[in-house]
Amino acid sequence: MAIMNNKAQDRLSFGSKALDEMIGGGLIRGTASLVSGAPGVGKTTLGLQFLIAGIKEDQPALLVSFEEFPASLIRDALQLGWDLKEMEREGLFKIIFTSPEVLLGSLKAQDSPLSETLYTLSPERMVIDSAAHFQRITNDPVELREIYNTLVNALKREGMTSLLLDEAVDVLALQQGRMASLPFLVDTVMLMRYVEIDSTMQRAIAVMKMRGSTHQKEIRRFQIQKGGLKIGDPFIGREGILSGTTHRIA
Amino acid sequence: MAIMNNKAQDRLSFGSKALDEMIGGGLIRGTASLVSGAPGVGKTTLGLQFLIAGIKEDQPALLVSFEEFPASLIRDALQLGWDLKEMEREGLFKIIFTSPEVLLGSLKAQDSPLSETLYTLSPERMVIDSAAHFQRITNDPVELREIYNTLVNALKREGMTSLLLDEAVDVLALQQGRMASLPFLVDTVMLMRYVEIDSTMQRAIAVMKMRGSTHQKEIRRFQIQKGGLKIGDPFIGREGILSGTTHRIA
Amino acid sequence: MAIMNNKAQDRLSFGSKALDEMIGGGLIRGTASLVSGAPGVGKTTLGLQFLIAGIKEDQPALLVSFEEFPASLIRDALQLGWDLKEMEREGLFKIIFTSPEVLLGSLKAQDSPLSETLYTLSPERMVIDSAAHFQRITNDPVELREIYNTLVNALKREGMTSLLLDEAVDVLALQQGRMASLPFLVDTVMLMRYVEIDSTMQRAIAVMKMRGSTHQKEIRRFQIQKGGLKIGDPFIGREGILSGTTHRIA
Amino acid sequence: MAIMNNKAQDRLSFGSKALDEMIGGGLIRGTASLVSGAPGVGKTTLGLQFLIAGIKEDQPALLVSFEEFPASLIRDALQLGWDLKEMEREGLFKIIFTSPEVLLGSLKAQDSPLSETLYTLSPERMVIDSAAHFQRITNDPVELREIYNTLVNALKREGMTSLLLDEAVDVLALQQGRMASLPFLVDTVMLMRYVEIDSTMQRAIAVMKMRGSTHQKEIRRFQIQKGGLKIGDPFIGREGILSGTTHRIA
Amino acid sequence: MAIMNNKAQDRLSFGSKALDEMIGGGLIRGTASLVSGAPGVGKTTLGLQFLIAGIKEDQPALLVSFEEFPASLIRDALQLGWDLKEMEREGLFKIIFTSPEVLLGSLKAQDSPLSETLYTLSPERMVIDSAAHFQRITNDPVELREIYNTLVNALKREGMTSLLLDEAVDVLALQQGRMASLPFLVDTVMLMRYVEIDSTMQRAIAVMKMRGSTHQKEIRRFQIQKGGLKIGDPFIGREGILSGTTHRIA
Amino acid sequence: MAIMNNKAQDRLSFGSKALDEMIGGGLIRGTASLVSGAPGVGKTTLGLQFLIAGIKEDQPALLVSFEEFPASLIRDALQLGWDLKEMEREGLFKIIFTSPEVLLGSLKAQDSPLSETLYTLSPERMVIDSAAHFQRITNDPVELREIYNTLVNALKREGMTSLLLDEAVDVLALQQGRMASLPFLVDTVMLMRYVEIDSTMQRAIAVMKMRGSTHQKEIRRFQIQKGGLKIGDPFIGREGILSGTTHRIA
Repeated sequence: MAIMNNKAQDRLSFGSKALDEMIGGGLIRGTASLVSGAPGVGKTTLGLQFLIAGIKEDQPALLVSFEEFPASLIRDALQLGWDLKEMEREGLFKIIFTSPEVLLGSLKAQDSPLSETLYTLSPERMVIDSAAHFQRITNDPVELREIYNTLVNALKREGMTSLLLDEAVDVLALQQGRMASLPFLVDTVMLMRYVEIDSTMQRAIAVMKMRGSTHQKEIRRFQIQKGGLKIGDPFIGREGILSGTTHRIA
Repeated sequence: MAIMNNKAQDRLSFGSKALDEMIGGGLIRGTASLVSGAPGVGKTTLGLQFLIAGIKEDQPALLVSFEEFPASLIRDALQLGWDLKEMEREGLFKIIFTSPEVLLGSLKAQDSPLSETLYTLSPERMVIDSAAHFQRITNDPVELREIYNTLVNALKREGMTSLLLDEAVDVLALQQGRMASLPFLVDTVMLMRYVEIDSTMQRAIAVMKMRGSTHQKEIRRFQIQKGGLKIGDPFIGREGILSGTTHRIA
Repeated sequence: MAIMNNKAQDRLSFGSKALDEMIGGGLIRGTASLVSGAPGVGKTTLGLQFLIAGIKEDQPALLVSFEEFPASLIRDALQLGWDLKEMEREGLFKIIFTSPEVLLGSLKAQDSPLSETLYTLSPERMVIDSAAHFQRITNDPVELREIYNTLVNALKREGMTSLLLDEAVDVLALQQGRMASLPFLVDTVMLMRYVEIDSTMQRAIAVMKMRGSTHQKEIRRFQIQKGGLKIGDPFIGREGILSGTTHRIA
Repeated sequence: MAIMNNKAQDRLSFGSKALDEMIGGGLIRGTASLVSGAPGVGKTTLGLQFLIAGIKEDQPALLVSFEEFPASLIRDALQLGWDLKEMEREGLFKIIFTSPEVLLGSLKAQDSPLSETLYTLSPERMVIDSAAHFQRITNDPVELREIYNTLVNALKREGMTSLLLDEAVDVLALQQGRMASLPFLVDTVMLMRYVEIDSTMQRAIAVMKMRGSTHQKEIRRFQIQKGGLKIGDPFIGREGILSGTTHRIA
Repeated sequence: MAIMNNKAQDRLSFGSKALDEMIGGGLIRGTASLVSGAPGVGKTTLGLQFLIAGIKEDQPALLVSFEEFPASLIRDALQLGWDLKEMEREGLFKIIFTSPEVLLGSLKAQDSPLSETLYTLSPERMVIDSAAHFQRITNDPVELREIYNTLVNALKREGMTSLLLDEAVDVLALQQGRMASLPFLVDTVMLMRYVEIDSTMQRAIAVMKMRGSTHQKEIRRFQIQKGGLKIGDPFIGREGILSGTTHRIA
Repeated sequence: MAIMNNKAQDRLSFGSKALDEMIGGGLIRGTASLVSGAPGVGKTTLGLQFLIAGIKEDQPALLVSFEEFPASLIRDALQLGWDLKEMEREGLFKIIFTSPEVLLGSLKAQDSPLSETLYTLSPERMVIDSAAHFQRITNDPVELREIYNTLVNALKREGMTSLLLDEAVDVLALQQGRMASLPFLVDTVMLMRYVEIDSTMQRAIAVMKMRGSTHQKEIRRFQIQKGGLKIGDPFIGREGILSGTTHRIA
């Protein structure tokens, strides 16, 4: 596998100047990031954009899908201008369709079913779609936190820079249940949100947390188009965007 | 059964220019869509409108009902100007009154009770009224997600373009329970909502998610009339429509 | 029992032009309607008004009470100008004081305790006060939905046009628990609400759902007086009436 | 015991013109009323005021306390200008300090511990402080509703006009749990509320439900002084008083 | 122990004219009061101020602590200008560090571990820090209410005037769980709240309930300084102070 | 270990004049403080800043981490201008990576695994990252409160001045569950919050509680930069900052 590059602050680009600027120049190599958002808001698109930016720099990229079939991912990617099949042929990209249990096992043991794939491809970038599926393994929030901890540490140990896509977690909420989990374990948290404005459904993206780096504080509009996310302006004159109670300032 | 048409972006019309434009020209053939809304808001009407638009293009159409009797559906459809009995006679339409368990079994095995119906009709369009009834099978959200996954994959494997009607799911909400489910599994999510404005009960429709396609972002008024939904204007000067806390902008 | 009149759209009046207009000319014969409201808002009054309007057209009417004694209902009705005892003597009206279990049994079997009453009276209109009491039979929402389904189907099979009074259900809410129930099963949903305006407790009525018919969308004031509900104006300049967060538009 | 006076609409006064007018001239003889409010808002004061108004008209009055000692009630009443000890000596008033179980038993059987007291005093007016204590008997909401039903029916059978004091129940709320209970069973519901206005704690009273009678719709201020409640003006220019989110209209 | 002074309305001062005026001239001798507030808002300070005002009038005073060590209480009191050690030496003050179970036992039996202390000191004023710890004894709200009832009655039987400090209970809320408890059992309820105003954390105090006495209705600012609470003005131009949703009136 | 300095009000600086002023001149030696905040808001940075300010005054400092690896902490600290490795070499700093159970055991017994480390380093300042992990030991809130009590008392007994980092606890909320815990047990509570303003994510810090000392009441902006937190202005013209419903005053 890829040997971790210890050069401090080695950055991995999203292939988008605006996105990279939001996270202080790119994701820090070897870190794990959480991308939280509602269904359809664009998490998988952001993940693919990250992987493809890597492929263009000859960094092997892996997409782990627990639910959506590779064929479906490939078809949707084509609409965004990305030919994943071609990239697979060129040997720098791979989609693995597996279960959370098998992935966890492969990250722990050397001779597991996925080990060869991981060894052959030696991915530098990885997207897990989605982290929510680890909830299938246990009902116990403490055990789940340990599973996530194992996962994040294994990904880092392998030197991979990873995006963990997840359902819309309310990271800003005050503690309600026991042991909120993923947002504390990862290095970076990116929020993607629907925002209802003027009777239209708009989209917002913000970086909430980034260990060991500065990042932009703006909550910004984005649209999905060929090539991935197009980052736009902040939401001037709006409040409550991230808490889901967006309204116009009088 | 119908062989899946692999031509990318083959679109199926609702027979309404405005509705089709909301979803980028029609539903993509072979995809599964969720229609979420409160009782009486017009989900079944939208479903029938979709099936009947298909029949007019000689596409066999199937309505699966778990609770409302066919006679009742036929009577209500007549009020909307649709003679379902006549369509059944012409062989392009069928209502099946069954249970979620039997439907699931038929989609899994070839020699199940519904298999012949499915084989004979070979439906290209299908409406399931409603997806909420699969909750009767299990209390476990993880098992329920797997059932929905099995259902959606079976529908796609058969090449059917399907609408899954469902009770009003809060797809915009931040994660509260474990493993929100259907909105993540389907390709398209359409929201139908009651909106209280000026002491009247109005109706709103919006497309929230559409895999592999662009779609309109507007939240639009609609009315139910002969022939189905009549799409109207966006709700200018209103906020909080989809979150249920609609109010006028000062 | 009354044979169902299959003439489409045969309407049953509330004996109030304004109320009938709200539901497109009256309740459709053979359908089941839900009336949802807080204690004291006027559900039983609306139910009696419906039955008495039928008696005036020689349609036998039945009131099933699970909790309030017939004597008490008779006394309260007298205040509204209705002499239920006299109507009972004339043979077109009957109050049955029974349990949900016995009612369900009678609707299923021919030789049950209530069968003779039902056979003799052959009611065309029926009010059940209240549907909430079926919750006494089971804690399981799935089983409860099946009980309600059985009830509604039995009432329709007998050709009766029925009002099911119920506690204040939040039919507009987004799905929270599992399998919301009655509002999906009935043909018509009428909401009765308290509204606090200018330091007074006012009352609102609205029709939310009506299968196979158009209906008025207005949320209207009403008062209770001799003869039943007096329908008034919509709540101009008010928002949030049905969600319980009524406030004046600035 | 007192034989129920069947003269329709025989009214029992609170000894306060304003209070009586709020409930259409007084409580209807033989009915049961719920008084709902937060601790300290004045429920017991209202109850005593009702009993004492009866004593002045030679109607025997009974106060049943489940928690507060008679000595304490007597001391507090003295502050309000009422000498309960003197009234007890005159034979028209009695405080019983007992448990919900014993009270229920006494209302069911003739030879129970309280029977002689009830027989000797033969109360026409009765206050139960508080109905919340019946929750000690069972955790099951269905069983609790039946207990309340038994209680209310026994009180009516004995011809007593009763006030059931209770903790602050949200009678306006949309159904959340299973089988809300007391507000449906009683004839009259009176709400007493704290209202925060201009950085002061004010008090509000309103009548929400009154079977077989008209009542005032206004939500009115009140103060507690010698002789009981002094009813004041409505809360002009305020909204949300009863829902607990009081705010000034802009 | 101190024999209860039966002179009606014998008042015990807080040593602060403003505070005493808020409660109609001081706490009524022999009553139990609840002081509810968030951590750090000043409940213990108010309790000490009450005890020390008594000591100055030669009334023995007892502080029962279930969690904070006497040494810590003594150190903090010194900052407020109170030398508790000196007061202990003078024999009019004592801190007992014990458990809820032991305290309850001592109030029930004569020969319990605390009996001698209670007998020797014969306290007229007592503060319990905090009542929340009785929740350690049971999970059952009905049993807890009985424990609180036993406690309050024992304190009154001994003639002590007591303050029960408690976590921030929402005494204004409408009933949600079963059997809210302490606020109903005590004679007086005082609320201490944090209020966020103009980006500062301010403090509010109000008296909500006071059996057998009038009290001020104002919600007032306070600050903590040497000698205890300094009562300030009401919050003019603010709403929602006690419900925690404070905002400025437009 | 360090012998507790009994000189009253001996203060420990954060190395930041503005921060120290917020807490009346620094944390009081020997006290325990809670730092509550969402993931990424800067709790660990504040903790490191506190430890490093001590090292500069030759006070040994200990960081206990339950989840984040020392290597990761060291790397992130470097970005903030702090060379933790160098400090470890100089013998005044140590990171212990352990479990809550082991830490608790070491604080209770003399011959536990951590005892030697604690004995050798004899830390005067200590940060626990994070207190939330003690929830792994038990589901019972009463037992958890006792564990926190044991922890806080042990830290104080050893004379250490400690910061307990914790997830975002709603210390201002009215009591909802049973026995809120840490905020009551510690001497000082500091809140760190995200605040959404003008479509940007800003950060707020406030001191809510400080036993035995005055403290600033302002809620202030802060930024994270080399050297730790840079304290800024209060949020003029904003309300609801700490309750999470921040909005601009009209």
